[in-house]
Amino acid sequence: MTLAAAPARLSTAASSFEADFVALLRGSATTDDAIEQRVRAILADVQQRGDTAVLEYTALFDGLRAPSLAALELTQADFAAAFDAIPAAQREALQAAAARVRSYHAAQKRACGESWSYRDADGTLLGQKVTPLDCVGIYVPGGKAAYPSSLLMNAIPAHVAGVQEIILVVPAPMRGSLATGGAGGQAAPGPGERNALVLAAAHVAGVTRAYTIGGAQAVAALAYGTQTLPRVDKITGPGNAYVACAKRHVFGTVGIDMIAGPSEILVLADGSTPPDWVAMDLFSQAEHDELAQSILLCPDAAYLDAVQHAIDRLLPTMPRAAIIAKSLNDRGALILTRDMPEACTISNRIAPEHLELSCQDPQRWEPLLRHAGAIFLGAYTSESLGDYCAGANHVLPTGGTARFSSPLGVYDFQKRSSLVEVSAAGAQTLGAIAAELAQGEGLQAHAQAAQMRLQPR
Amino acid sequence: MTLAAAPARLSTAASSFEADFVALLRGSATTDDAIEQRVRAILADVQQRGDTAVLEYTALFDGLRAPSLAALELTQADFAAAFDAIPAAQREALQAAAARVRSYHAAQKRACGESWSYRDADGTLLGQKVTPLDCVGIYVPGGKAAYPSSLLMNAIPAHVAGVQEIILVVPAPMRGSLATGGAGGQAAPGPGERNALVLAAAHVAGVTRAYTIGGAQAVAALAYGTQTLPRVDKITGPGNAYVACAKRHVFGTVGIDMIAGPSEILVLADGSTPPDWVAMDLFSQAEHDELAQSILLCPDAAYLDAVQHAIDRLLPTMPRAAIIAKSLNDRGALILTRDMPEACTISNRIAPEHLELSCQDPQRWEPLLRHAGAIFLGAYTSESLGDYCAGANHVLPTGGTARFSSPLGVYDFQKRSSLVEVSAAGAQTLGAIAAELAQGEGLQAHAQAAQMRLQPR
Repeated sequence: MTLAAAPARLSTAASSFEADFVALLRGSATTDDAIEQRVRAILADVQQRGDTAVLEYTALFDGLRAPSLAALELTQADFAAAFDAIPAAQREALQAAAARVRSYHAAQKRACGESWSYRDADGTLLGQKVTPLDCVGIYVPGGKAAYPSSLLMNAIPAHVAGVQEIILVVPAPMRGSLATGGAGGQAAPGPGERNALVLAAAHVAGVTRAYTIGGAQAVAALAYGTQTLPRVDKITGPGNAYVACAKRHVFGTVGIDMIAGPSEILVLADGSTPPDWVAMDLFSQAEHDELAQSILLCPDAAYLDAVQHAIDRLLPTMPRAAIIAKSLNDRGALILTRDMPEACTISNRIAPEHLELSCQDPQRWEPLLRHAGAIFLGAYTSESLGDYCAGANHVLPTGGTARFSSPLGVYDFQKRSSLVEVSAAGAQTLGAIAAELAQGEGLQAHAQAAQMRLQPR
Repeated sequence: MTLAAAPARLSTAASSFEADFVALLRGSATTDDAIEQRVRAILADVQQRGDTAVLEYTALFDGLRAPSLAALELTQADFAAAFDAIPAAQREALQAAAARVRSYHAAQKRACGESWSYRDADGTLLGQKVTPLDCVGIYVPGGKAAYPSSLLMNAIPAHVAGVQEIILVVPAPMRGSLATGGAGGQAAPGPGERNALVLAAAHVAGVTRAYTIGGAQAVAALAYGTQTLPRVDKITGPGNAYVACAKRHVFGTVGIDMIAGPSEILVLADGSTPPDWVAMDLFSQAEHDELAQSILLCPDAAYLDAVQHAIDRLLPTMPRAAIIAKSLNDRGALILTRDMPEACTISNRIAPEHLELSCQDPQRWEPLLRHAGAIFLGAYTSESLGDYCAGANHVLPTGGTARFSSPLGVYDFQKRSSLVEVSAAGAQTLGAIAAELAQGEGLQAHAQAAQMRLQPR
């Protein structure tokens, strides 16, 4: 069978554009009631029975039997051993990526994560103190699809923020278990399938504790605490539908990062980038997942043809060609625009997770781009460089949520406390204002608390 | 009937302390399935039928009949007229409060809300661009319990952030309607019960559009858009159980601020503040709501007695004495600690919304306080000054969520886009690292996208 990928061709000048465009962006937002019910039951069970419940679900879903949660703990020695065992080239790449991610997030902390305050003329102090969360949980999916880069992108900002306890949960399902798509059955004792690169990444990222547990049971353990695990303040990291559902439910008891949807890329091109490069960038999004979305915007019709030819030529060479083809056929699009400003307008309507501005003089168009998780400027900036090692975070708002949310950052592992110190003199001015407004709202104790301070002792 | 308020007396030295303390903090977290079902139906209905559904629910719940949503619009002229009609003292207090809130949030924006970037030695640029949300919705409860200060605290940070469209929804229920606790029945045409101070506050706060709608139907209209209302990017502001439930459901479609629980104050005193002041500060929290919580921590038993005497003496003078008494009796506590450091430790376990450090040399203890929405330092800083006009925001994390979340701020009305511009030279270094890690994750298109850029054109 020959695979072919033919992303939809749209043109902003076509009368059907508006309808086609809306259809293209329509997500597959489905909430599965069966998952919902199952997750609620698991959360309640872990909240009540703690370690015992976590062990039972781990045996059931991951096929992994352990006498205690402590037996599923990964130690710093495990991380170090994994790091030492991988090839030197991988070790160096991990270290180089971690160093760049760390220095980017340190710059971010200096730019927007420091405490600040000022004093009024009357001596009243106002400001905010910024402090790290005490304890966070990082979820990393297990088995074959485990992504060490994801561990770096979640743990390093927490570490840079100054979080003292960074707890990793990463399932290690046995072959043939329910979690790996197998039939399940009798659970066996053993370490389960561990991913050496993930453990090696934990070694360089600042993880302080780790357990080979996963699913909704791991989220519950982190959110409520168990006999072995402390309750964390926030849970971040990607996961399957059960994990996402569990995170949504525990939101409020703990903080969460976001509920990520399928990944997307938008390439906004002027036609000056080699078509092969753009085709491969579209592939690199599509290879994640059949639901992933790759869109190219360009005012040059001949260039869209050239990219389509590159797609045709390169697709058969790709190991994940089947996934790429399905993603591009179902959700991909090559969109012809009237000009670059119109392409920017369309991009703003999409509010993409990843936005490549693959053109000459990208700084000219960047100011027109109002909503995007990350903007990659210029032909040399492939999304994949950003995904792994440029330094910026690869955890980004999906599905148009870049309209109102931001990349994962140091700020997600900090919180702010307002500081107010009213001087005796300040209390005289402010007391009169507060009393007037409190009376207007019918809150007399508020008013009197202000008025009592009107006469300095 | 004589009202009495006797907050629980606890001592950290008592053997029962741990159990008593845990019981004290136990929230009344209940999810009401009936509300849940009702809200889901309203959300789905408004999403489908738009304006028509909003008008029907407004007639049903608020007893307010209107021919169109446009007929429920409040204009800038309405705001100005309300502002002109209130007493001069209120006008001046509103303006003074708004000016202070605005300058605080402008300082906050300068401190942590500006774009930043840097370049590597090889010319690669990294940073983040910070931009305002396009359009936000502010919910303000209607009727008698409408709080103009709440409007200022939500709208001004949005305005300072640079949000272009700030849409206020504030219900104006008819007397006797379901929304006002009445029996409902036939809806009537008319403006409904408007709160002049709220409209006057809208005049000084930068609101751009407003409608007298409320409840889950208003949240739905803002989240999905209707024929008349645009879809917003984020919804903030307090509301009743229906509003809170609706906000939780639309989270992800739009951003939301937080789901606020009952309000709380913790006063950490060394015994040097006049007991009347502290008693009144405890009252000012308790008068909000019977579920509100007021706690005093102090290492001086005689001072706790003095505050109890002040409570006994002052309670009968309060217009809202019944609410205060119930709140203090059910949820209040005076806690004796061994010393000030232990009081700080207890405070950190509570992670209070409002924390008054009512003592001499508050700067000595402030560094020990790790979790709080706002910290009010020194005897002159009553929470009520902070609530209305010190300048800091009064929308704060409740129920211990100060462990992981922050006061409402300019940052809630901004979002960040990462910026990455890899130079041709940078692509050589980064490409090798990215390709190595992508191969390790089995993502060959990612690897090839990086490798293609290894030979500069």
